[in-house]
Amino acid sequence: MELKQALQQLDLLQRKQIAYGHAMGLISYDGNTVAPKGSAANRAETLGILSGEIYMLSTSEETIALLDELHARREELDLKSRRIVEVMHKEIENTRKIPMDEYIAYQKLCVEAEDIWRKAKDANDYPLFMPYLKDLIEYTRRIAHYTHPDLPVYDALLDQYEKGLTREKCDQFFDTLRRELVPLIHKVAQAKQVDDSFLTGVFPLDKQRQLSDYVMQVMGIDRNHCGIGETEHPFTTGFTKYDVRITTHYYEKNFASSLYSVIHEGGHALYDLHPADDLAYTNIGGGVSMSIHESQSRFYENIIGRSRAFVSLIAPKLRELFPEINDRTDDELYKAFNKAQPSLIRTESDELHYCMHIMVRYELEQKLMDGTLTVEALPQEWNRLYKEYLGVDVPSDREGVLQDTHWAGGMFGYFPSYALGSAYGAQMLSVMQETVDVQSVIESGDLTPINCWLEEHIWKYGGLYEPGTLLETALGRPFDPMYFVQYLKQKFTEIYQL
Amino acid sequence: MELKQALQQLDLLQRKQIAYGHAMGLISYDGNTVAPKGSAANRAETLGILSGEIYMLSTSEETIALLDELHARREELDLKSRRIVEVMHKEIENTRKIPMDEYIAYQKLCVEAEDIWRKAKDANDYPLFMPYLKDLIEYTRRIAHYTHPDLPVYDALLDQYEKGLTREKCDQFFDTLRRELVPLIHKVAQAKQVDDSFLTGVFPLDKQRQLSDYVMQVMGIDRNHCGIGETEHPFTTGFTKYDVRITTHYYEKNFASSLYSVIHEGGHALYDLHPADDLAYTNIGGGVSMSIHESQSRFYENIIGRSRAFVSLIAPKLRELFPEINDRTDDELYKAFNKAQPSLIRTESDELHYCMHIMVRYELEQKLMDGTLTVEALPQEWNRLYKEYLGVDVPSDREGVLQDTHWAGGMFGYFPSYALGSAYGAQMLSVMQETVDVQSVIESGDLTPINCWLEEHIWKYGGLYEPGTLLETALGRPFDPMYFVQYLKQKFTEIYQL
Repeated sequence: MELKQALQQLDLLQRKQIAYGHAMGLISYDGNTVAPKGSAANRAETLGILSGEIYMLSTSEETIALLDELHARREELDLKSRRIVEVMHKEIENTRKIPMDEYIAYQKLCVEAEDIWRKAKDANDYPLFMPYLKDLIEYTRRIAHYTHPDLPVYDALLDQYEKGLTREKCDQFFDTLRRELVPLIHKVAQAKQVDDSFLTGVFPLDKQRQLSDYVMQVMGIDRNHCGIGETEHPFTTGFTKYDVRITTHYYEKNFASSLYSVIHEGGHALYDLHPADDLAYTNIGGGVSMSIHESQSRFYENIIGRSRAFVSLIAPKLRELFPEINDRTDDELYKAFNKAQPSLIRTESDELHYCMHIMVRYELEQKLMDGTLTVEALPQEWNRLYKEYLGVDVPSDREGVLQDTHWAGGMFGYFPSYALGSAYGAQMLSVMQETVDVQSVIESGDLTPINCWLEEHIWKYGGLYEPGTLLETALGRPFDPMYFVQYLKQKFTEIYQL
Repeated sequence: MELKQALQQLDLLQRKQIAYGHAMGLISYDGNTVAPKGSAANRAETLGILSGEIYMLSTSEETIALLDELHARREELDLKSRRIVEVMHKEIENTRKIPMDEYIAYQKLCVEAEDIWRKAKDANDYPLFMPYLKDLIEYTRRIAHYTHPDLPVYDALLDQYEKGLTREKCDQFFDTLRRELVPLIHKVAQAKQVDDSFLTGVFPLDKQRQLSDYVMQVMGIDRNHCGIGETEHPFTTGFTKYDVRITTHYYEKNFASSLYSVIHEGGHALYDLHPADDLAYTNIGGGVSMSIHESQSRFYENIIGRSRAFVSLIAPKLRELFPEINDRTDDELYKAFNKAQPSLIRTESDELHYCMHIMVRYELEQKLMDGTLTVEALPQEWNRLYKEYLGVDVPSDREGVLQDTHWAGGMFGYFPSYALGSAYGAQMLSVMQETVDVQSVIESGDLTPINCWLEEHIWKYGGLYEPGTLLETALGRPFDPMYFVQYLKQKFTEIYQL
């Protein structure tokens, strides 16, 4: 086959894969947002069938021959095509290792399990979710064995979300955080506490919806290509760079929860919206890895969104929408949004304690995967670790082991990305400040120079480079968690006058 | 092949077709409801690809061989399987007649055209829509020539929406309506007019949303399987009987518009929700034809929803939600909801004038298809017929030729279904009243006996019988438009004291 012809076939194949991904992604998004509750089984049926179709397409003899040929001739390809071929070749190799019936059954299970998880969380009924979690773990283990027969299961899962990440690297990273942050957390606990009582009140949902629109506009998110929906657990999904959706959850008594969810998901959305145009409709047209993705979302949520300058920027709008906080100063708002205290819910945790929540999950996931922790004993162990790491008693599974959607969606090994992403973000800030006066930019209200830096160094590349390469190139030096530690120390020492 | 094995293959094939239909239907629904505006091209790309996939699946050698075999042996099959095979065999024959590239291009065109139509309507810019309409007509003609080479184009289109319907039958039907209704319309015009000025006011959208939920509950719609969204033009789409969506459009100054849209679409939804379970995931699991569908929606909207008993039933809720109409009597509301006067917008027309709106479209469609009317001259001709049939001057294309979505979605030949459906519904009422005391049932607030009659005679059969057979069996006699005429005469003679 002519190389040109082969590349055309590759383009068609990718467009088909993206189209199936769009359809399946939208069915999931719809299921999480507006679909009637009784439609879950129907959705599972459709997703099962479409998974089967995409499996057959991706593993057909024709596809394999095409990719084998292109892979063999990859040195003749330009950078973009070579990367596309390498990623797809690897993916097909992995997919082929999974028997088709198991692949389809697993997809169906994930859809059903998410639905049951939602019901279980609503009803605070962990036993309802338990058999699904058991099956999910079982499938995840089997699939990891198929795709990475030489790796321990949890290492295979880490590698899946972050190419090259190992348990050893994670352990080192979390050890550093533990060593450096636990003393800081203790100091904060003993300092004079911040008053955030005024963040509890009655904040009408329609005003909160207006706030979402406002803050997305401040962030420079192109609403022509980005929608917002409402779900139990906020998330972002991008079908292509031309159609990205974020979601949030509004609580009438607490506007800060949705505000910072929207900024977090907005950070993901900006990344998904800005890969270079010529990567669209390819397998490298989205974010490269989960931790790079989280570096963008948590950078926006915390480093930008919880900065003094940003709080001052949006404070007038907050006072306009919510008369209840009309008499609060910028400083009072800034401190309240940064109040650091141990808590139950990860997504509502402050920056300082956040990594403790991740460590709980990191430990539990490993034990669930290596079989040293049963699904039956999980809630108890969850509660024990929350007591140990965060000093809090978990009053219900709803606020405990059932709080996150990740495991229900089969996402084991994802959580470390949040902590890594947070740390990447802090180092990015440091590098960005060499050329951008970040504080002045935020004060100006026009975040373009920040977005330009991120687009130039991260977003535009999509999945063109391995995450490690992308990160080191953007940073101009190796990743070092001490940037994150220093950032937190400086910020919370100032707020708590330590 | 064993018959049993062939039927299993047929089941799998249908499940795939339903799954693709679900995905494509949802992408369209999403595009009409919550998708960001800039995502239309992406949606068109995906729908184009999925259309190609379903085309290949439905016309593969394997599929054709399977259907040919089953069709040859159809006498050995039970009623349900035989009907499934006959419908699919016919459909495949039709599809195969259309070249694949034209089939895909047409699907893409419909998606793009709907998007442009929306923009054109917003901007009152008919010329923007014109080239798309031209292409749509061109494609529709070509496709009708492929599928029905022996029929005039418009007859082919009628037959597509209503098996067995011809221009001759339509002409007879509309002639009867014209002969009988035009004198009545004149009498009403000269009578003392009904006051509906209190229906214009300020009716907050959140209250209107509550009204939608209330009225769907009154209708007995299972919300576990039926959602509601918001669109420019209300519609209903059912992916399977387990996942049905209706939409409405809220106008702050006019709650009656959305109220009766919801009842209309709710009538469609009830039909889509109630085919027998064993028809689900088959090609006969939905409504059998457009006019039978419209008979259900317009039966609910007008014959039930605009009846004196129904207005009295919902009046307390209306007064509770909208203090502005607190002092209005049931009789005043009843008459206001039934105010008969010529108007510009079909979907907001009263029952009496409604068929005049349809006749305009019926005439124009025929001329567009046979080439005696150009797309350029269409608005002028539209406006001329509105003057002739309804006596109104059309002030803008937005309120004229751009008002409906149908043509933008490639649906030519659909409009007569609305008028036929209205007339079917009136005859159904007459038959239903032989065993159900309809007025007492509505007064009781529990519409179950009405829904049971409809389920027993119409809904449960899905597409098991030809529409003509279904209708005559349900009615126990041939269709006769005079039931509709008598119903209208009685109702409007009473309201207008003629």
